[in-house]
Amino acid sequence: MPQKSALKQFQKLFKTKRKKRPAHKVGLPPAALVFTGDQKQEQVFINLITYDEAEIQEERIELRALQKHLDLQKKVIWIDVVGLHDITLLEELGKLFGIHKLTLEDILSVEQRPKMEVFDEYIFATIKMIQCNSPESPIMEEQVSFLMEKNILITFQEKEGDVFQFVRDRLLDPKRAIRQRGTDYLLYALLDAVIDNYFTVMEHIGERIENLEQQAMLEPGNETLNALYLQRKEMMDLRRSVYPLREVIGSFDKYAEHKISPEVRPFIRDLYENTIQVIETMEVFRDMSSGVLDLYMNSLSNRMNNVMKVLTIISTIFIPLSFVAGVYGMNFEYMPELTMRYGYFYVLGAMGVAIVGMLGFFRWKKWI
Amino acid sequence: MPQKSALKQFQKLFKTKRKKRPAHKVGLPPAALVFTGDQKQEQVFINLITYDEAEIQEERIELRALQKHLDLQKKVIWIDVVGLHDITLLEELGKLFGIHKLTLEDILSVEQRPKMEVFDEYIFATIKMIQCNSPESPIMEEQVSFLMEKNILITFQEKEGDVFQFVRDRLLDPKRAIRQRGTDYLLYALLDAVIDNYFTVMEHIGERIENLEQQAMLEPGNETLNALYLQRKEMMDLRRSVYPLREVIGSFDKYAEHKISPEVRPFIRDLYENTIQVIETMEVFRDMSSGVLDLYMNSLSNRMNNVMKVLTIISTIFIPLSFVAGVYGMNFEYMPELTMRYGYFYVLGAMGVAIVGMLGFFRWKKWI
Amino acid sequence: MPQKSALKQFQKLFKTKRKKRPAHKVGLPPAALVFTGDQKQEQVFINLITYDEAEIQEERIELRALQKHLDLQKKVIWIDVVGLHDITLLEELGKLFGIHKLTLEDILSVEQRPKMEVFDEYIFATIKMIQCNSPESPIMEEQVSFLMEKNILITFQEKEGDVFQFVRDRLLDPKRAIRQRGTDYLLYALLDAVIDNYFTVMEHIGERIENLEQQAMLEPGNETLNALYLQRKEMMDLRRSVYPLREVIGSFDKYAEHKISPEVRPFIRDLYENTIQVIETMEVFRDMSSGVLDLYMNSLSNRMNNVMKVLTIISTIFIPLSFVAGVYGMNFEYMPELTMRYGYFYVLGAMGVAIVGMLGFFRWKKWI
Amino acid sequence: MPQKSALKQFQKLFKTKRKKRPAHKVGLPPAALVFTGDQKQEQVFINLITYDEAEIQEERIELRALQKHLDLQKKVIWIDVVGLHDITLLEELGKLFGIHKLTLEDILSVEQRPKMEVFDEYIFATIKMIQCNSPESPIMEEQVSFLMEKNILITFQEKEGDVFQFVRDRLLDPKRAIRQRGTDYLLYALLDAVIDNYFTVMEHIGERIENLEQQAMLEPGNETLNALYLQRKEMMDLRRSVYPLREVIGSFDKYAEHKISPEVRPFIRDLYENTIQVIETMEVFRDMSSGVLDLYMNSLSNRMNNVMKVLTIISTIFIPLSFVAGVYGMNFEYMPELTMRYGYFYVLGAMGVAIVGMLGFFRWKKWI
Amino acid sequence: MPQKSALKQFQKLFKTKRKKRPAHKVGLPPAALVFTGDQKQEQVFINLITYDEAEIQEERIELRALQKHLDLQKKVIWIDVVGLHDITLLEELGKLFGIHKLTLEDILSVEQRPKMEVFDEYIFATIKMIQCNSPESPIMEEQVSFLMEKNILITFQEKEGDVFQFVRDRLLDPKRAIRQRGTDYLLYALLDAVIDNYFTVMEHIGERIENLEQQAMLEPGNETLNALYLQRKEMMDLRRSVYPLREVIGSFDKYAEHKISPEVRPFIRDLYENTIQVIETMEVFRDMSSGVLDLYMNSLSNRMNNVMKVLTIISTIFIPLSFVAGVYGMNFEYMPELTMRYGYFYVLGAMGVAIVGMLGFFRWKKWI
Repeated sequence: MPQKSALKQFQKLFKTKRKKRPAHKVGLPPAALVFTGDQKQEQVFINLITYDEAEIQEERIELRALQKHLDLQKKVIWIDVVGLHDITLLEELGKLFGIHKLTLEDILSVEQRPKMEVFDEYIFATIKMIQCNSPESPIMEEQVSFLMEKNILITFQEKEGDVFQFVRDRLLDPKRAIRQRGTDYLLYALLDAVIDNYFTVMEHIGERIENLEQQAMLEPGNETLNALYLQRKEMMDLRRSVYPLREVIGSFDKYAEHKISPEVRPFIRDLYENTIQVIETMEVFRDMSSGVLDLYMNSLSNRMNNVMKVLTIISTIFIPLSFVAGVYGMNFEYMPELTMRYGYFYVLGAMGVAIVGMLGFFRWKKWI
Repeated sequence: MPQKSALKQFQKLFKTKRKKRPAHKVGLPPAALVFTGDQKQEQVFINLITYDEAEIQEERIELRALQKHLDLQKKVIWIDVVGLHDITLLEELGKLFGIHKLTLEDILSVEQRPKMEVFDEYIFATIKMIQCNSPESPIMEEQVSFLMEKNILITFQEKEGDVFQFVRDRLLDPKRAIRQRGTDYLLYALLDAVIDNYFTVMEHIGERIENLEQQAMLEPGNETLNALYLQRKEMMDLRRSVYPLREVIGSFDKYAEHKISPEVRPFIRDLYENTIQVIETMEVFRDMSSGVLDLYMNSLSNRMNNVMKVLTIISTIFIPLSFVAGVYGMNFEYMPELTMRYGYFYVLGAMGVAIVGMLGFFRWKKWI
Repeated sequence: MPQKSALKQFQKLFKTKRKKRPAHKVGLPPAALVFTGDQKQEQVFINLITYDEAEIQEERIELRALQKHLDLQKKVIWIDVVGLHDITLLEELGKLFGIHKLTLEDILSVEQRPKMEVFDEYIFATIKMIQCNSPESPIMEEQVSFLMEKNILITFQEKEGDVFQFVRDRLLDPKRAIRQRGTDYLLYALLDAVIDNYFTVMEHIGERIENLEQQAMLEPGNETLNALYLQRKEMMDLRRSVYPLREVIGSFDKYAEHKISPEVRPFIRDLYENTIQVIETMEVFRDMSSGVLDLYMNSLSNRMNNVMKVLTIISTIFIPLSFVAGVYGMNFEYMPELTMRYGYFYVLGAMGVAIVGMLGFFRWKKWI
Repeated sequence: MPQKSALKQFQKLFKTKRKKRPAHKVGLPPAALVFTGDQKQEQVFINLITYDEAEIQEERIELRALQKHLDLQKKVIWIDVVGLHDITLLEELGKLFGIHKLTLEDILSVEQRPKMEVFDEYIFATIKMIQCNSPESPIMEEQVSFLMEKNILITFQEKEGDVFQFVRDRLLDPKRAIRQRGTDYLLYALLDAVIDNYFTVMEHIGERIENLEQQAMLEPGNETLNALYLQRKEMMDLRRSVYPLREVIGSFDKYAEHKISPEVRPFIRDLYENTIQVIETMEVFRDMSSGVLDLYMNSLSNRMNNVMKVLTIISTIFIPLSFVAGVYGMNFEYMPELTMRYGYFYVLGAMGVAIVGMLGFFRWKKWI
Repeated sequence: MPQKSALKQFQKLFKTKRKKRPAHKVGLPPAALVFTGDQKQEQVFINLITYDEAEIQEERIELRALQKHLDLQKKVIWIDVVGLHDITLLEELGKLFGIHKLTLEDILSVEQRPKMEVFDEYIFATIKMIQCNSPESPIMEEQVSFLMEKNILITFQEKEGDVFQFVRDRLLDPKRAIRQRGTDYLLYALLDAVIDNYFTVMEHIGERIENLEQQAMLEPGNETLNALYLQRKEMMDLRRSVYPLREVIGSFDKYAEHKISPEVRPFIRDLYENTIQVIETMEVFRDMSSGVLDLYMNSLSNRMNNVMKVLTIISTIFIPLSFVAGVYGMNFEYMPELTMRYGYFYVLGAMGVAIVGMLGFFRWKKWI
């Protein structure tokens, strides 16, 4: 059956995602630096992009080579750290830019709740980047952290491959607004790229729910419920990534006044509204999936009803007739009907009339 | 069956509305100007109305002809832009009036959450205009945006045909209060026209729910539930247009003090209360439709109960009697009753008594 | 059946009330004066009561005769306008006392959400007066508006007959505190009279729910559910009158400091607490009626259970016995039992033993 | 059956409590003094306790004799008024201590929502004292009011017998802290005694719910649901006494700064936390009882399932066999099996095999 | 059956935990010192750890020997009191450090709701330490109180064995940051150790719920529901320990500014976020367990459906056939079919065709 395999597939997707969760470092000193995720690539490297209005430079370097490539005179410096498992390198980076130990810890613990913090020297935010290529494929979650210090923006990702390609492409075009503006606008553009992907994922989820809805209406089965259950569980997990976003983006407006230039602030507010829209969509999905549950439950009991009706119709017609046949099967010596010439045919006729009458009754009751 | 077609019709309505949703521009630069809706008419044009207490002028011009028709000396200038798909024209308009790029983007993305923003030069609001001609017809949603800059009010609609006709009619009458007052009062009058239509739609929805209610009580079927489900889904969608209204209208009172004259402010407050009334009505509808679900579920299990009762009555009467007939159909050699003269009639009589007794029992149990 | 008629009666009550709702004036200029209710009496008249500590005067005059009867020197002037359909007269009244057009509109639209507003010259409040003479009779809703301007209190009712009689009686007694105090105390006394009636209505609703509860426990039927549904719908409607009261009464304390004398303010606070008590009672009723729904659902499935048990008992006893009888009804030539002398009686005896055994089994299972 | 009587008992308890509710004084002047409860004892009397560190005096006097026994020089004076039905006496008391009419009204209306008010001369609080001697006995509610004016504390109870005995005992011991402290500490000690009793009642309710839980798991019946329903109803009532407590006790900390000495304030805060704990316990009970409902519902449908299984097993075994017997009971002239020597035994054997096979099938299906 | 024993085990675990609850000291003077828990070890002793950057001393002494071992010159003094039942010793300790009587009472009453209080001399917090060694083992709860006064930190535990071992180990290492910092950092490290254990417990609960989920999908039985119910009850209890944590940790940031050094405050904020994460996880678990309930309910009704289908299939096939056999078993004298040469075989053939037809019908209906 296709549903069964759909369920399997679903569960598989789900498992993959789930595995990430248990990792938590109990019994270690607080603020000890441990990478809580799975290593997803061999080497930690850096995408270093420095640009101003006039020129742009993009290099792929190793983390340890950063210092000598760094030219702080440039207007905007974007250090994109890809890979988190090499802790000593990250510690060096931390020392280089004066990053608080707790911030480093937040960057490394990929189960971190999305949050935003303002320090004296920098602002720091960590959120989830979710991706989902098609309604059938799993939702991939990856943690991205942003650290903005003066004209430097450092981003931290778990592995290669991200949603930032569009931003990089625009950077190459010197006429784009992004080249004229500062680091805060770059930060905004990257956040916007992440949140735009939430909309895609939302649409995929919406399609999934509509599929389930159709399935619940047309061919409800155990698999529908299980798939629905997994769907809801997945959404519970997703909610934990999405809901704190509101607070994170809101904090930029509230607490980072001095780090964000006035021209960029309307963009941030716009982002904030997009976040709210994502959250509201999730609320609608939640209501929808409980509506699908109602549909499914009803389909089930409708089926039960139909089974009962068949049973009742058959029993109601044949049990009384069997009784009549039984009566004429009795062995009494004196049963006048038995000796009648056409007794048998009279009885058969009466039975036929009874069957027709019953069927009429059921039709009237709208059972058939 | 009429219900079935009702369901079909419902679904059709629903589909039309739904199609609008998926469009979201992922992977584009933020604040890139793209029209996210469907083009609904051939040409973008403008209804230009300028008036003061003494005279009024109404012209239908093309967007590019606006500048030479514009006479900024008039007291109130209402530029009603109809059609949004010609982006270059809108960009020119944006330059002419100094509209922020994000505002232009909000105007164009028809999936925008209703919102209100105060800029230095203008105040901007975008809400949904909903229309529904009869309880059976679909709810049409269209985005309307308002931009008030000094004595100019610019409105943006997706297509011709709106709820503003009453306002235009009143403008023609020089004795009307609206001719004496300024642009802010015009803004209020238009918002009021939009929100008044929400009441009509609410009434149509109310009628729909009462129809479903009646259907659930009298002839519940699978279609009832499906229609109910679609109804709830439609209301979920509608909620996303309605709930933010409270905030939008409330913001006029809170943040736009300097743009709204003191005489107009009580009117805005009145509008705010109407919005709350719409929201409360939606809440009541939500409760009502879950009540209808209960009604339906109960009707279903009542039917099931009745089916079971018929089965039980028939079985309980005839299964024991068949047994008795079976006993006298046994072929034992020595069965004294069989040779009795009226044995057969005694047995028939006893069976008749049993039937009457059973019926009495069922009546006493209130099953029949 | 008595329940059926109870349902009918219920529905009738409900219809009466419902009719009032749809009226909303779409497409009219905002703040246009239209009376949105049904005209409930022929003529608009005024009950004019003027009093101070020493003397009191009560007159029933026509609205147009008001001006010449008005003696503004008196300490307290209570103008009780009865009937709202004569709009031109009300407009004159509005001009006489400088009433804002929006206030007049609120007075006339009987679907207005309860609210309280402070203007420079007056404070205005509009609430619902509900009456219910017995648990079986419908809840009548009428809008009452209060407008206090200096020493004048104007009240607006839809029709003759109100809950203010007790206040009028007390006014006649010169020793009563109410004669010593000012207009604000009169306002309080009238509000108190309205809210006191909410308690009566709450008690009637409480009785209704307890009746439904008893019905659900003892003789649950389709009517119980329908009545319960109507009851909940009625309560939803009522909530819309009751919940805003909290805000209305609370506003007197918060925003009308300068219009309410310090001696009267504790009374207003007391009123506020009564309002909260009404709201809490409604919450309890809401929980209770969902509890009644549970009771009803359980009664239903209990009944189903019992039907199934009867079916199962009868089938379980007689189907196997019929089989045995069928066996001995077979026509094999060689069936040794058939020729036994007492074979028939042995079989009958064995069947009797089986029946007793089955009954014992069912008793042990607690089915009978 | 023991459950039935348990239900009866429950209902009886419940009735007793319920009777108190309806009394509300509609149509009386506001702030008219009426005692809304039942008179619970013959005579109103006073327990007058005056003490300082050195000595303590306890007298039981009549209300009218109060004035001459009053020695205002003592450090702490506790006037415990027992019985509320003698209104004229209470009015005298009101005059003697300058009590506001609304306060007197609150003291007398035993349906008053718990509240706390700060007046210029005194602070006033009224709460419910609940008592419940065993899990089976009803919850008794009595209103207690506290009025503290300088060094005088007046308490008002409906009838003799309270939870204050422990406080009185401690007062007799000169070494106790309570003798060293002032009237505010006495007030605290009395409030603490009242709230401590809430914990006892909570434990009794907890036991009741656990009994219901056990009943729902082991022998679910109609009585379980009804008892559960009554339990929930009782808790709804109780909630109305408990929830406002939080506000009442919180107000002492917030609004009565000048009346409560700094040493006593930590104790009040402690009391506040106890109140929150009571409220949280009630929340847990609420969740628990809806959990018990689930348990019960499941037990019911499990039973139904079992009934259906028995029916199905019996039918599935014997209906086909009866058919076979019926076949060999047909009267065709030419049926070769009938003349076989051991045909009968072959058929019996085949039937036996079929029965064993069926039973094996059911076992495999885990139905038996 | 393994499930049954799982349930038993569950209940046992549960009982152990539950027993602690009833103990509440009604009728005692407020702030009387009583230990409300069970004595869990013979002797109260103290783990005294004093350290600065250079050296560390750890001693296990008796409580009464504390004073002479105390050297207040050391930078950090951690007095870890193990065992709470010896009240007189605790009172002495209270006098020695000037601990408020209410604080002592909070330390002793192990049912205390988690809280945090700031006094002039010290800050005090009491929370629950939970431990759970495996998904199957019970959740153990123990109260831990923290009291920080200048450079002294006193902790109070009910019995030996805690989650602080990691902290002690780190203290021994002079290079660790904890040795460089003050008492406030020690406090943080201990709180962090407690909250880290919440994560472990959360994971165990998560595993339990996933087991229940699997059970509900694959082999749902009465035990599943009971286990689910107990699981939810346990989570209700746990919520009472977890939810107040947010407030407790939040209070350190809000009210204890002057007691916590600026370097330690980011750590506290980090702790606060961990607490929120625990609470959110509990919310997810709550939703998940109600999802499991749906799964279970559906499995149940699916089973019922299957039972009904078997019944219906068997009845629908054989009842009509039995009727046919009955017809030919009638004893009419003239029944032409009976004398036909192959009548019997024609009938048997027709019956076979009917059976095959029925089976086809059921297959088409997807019942088999």
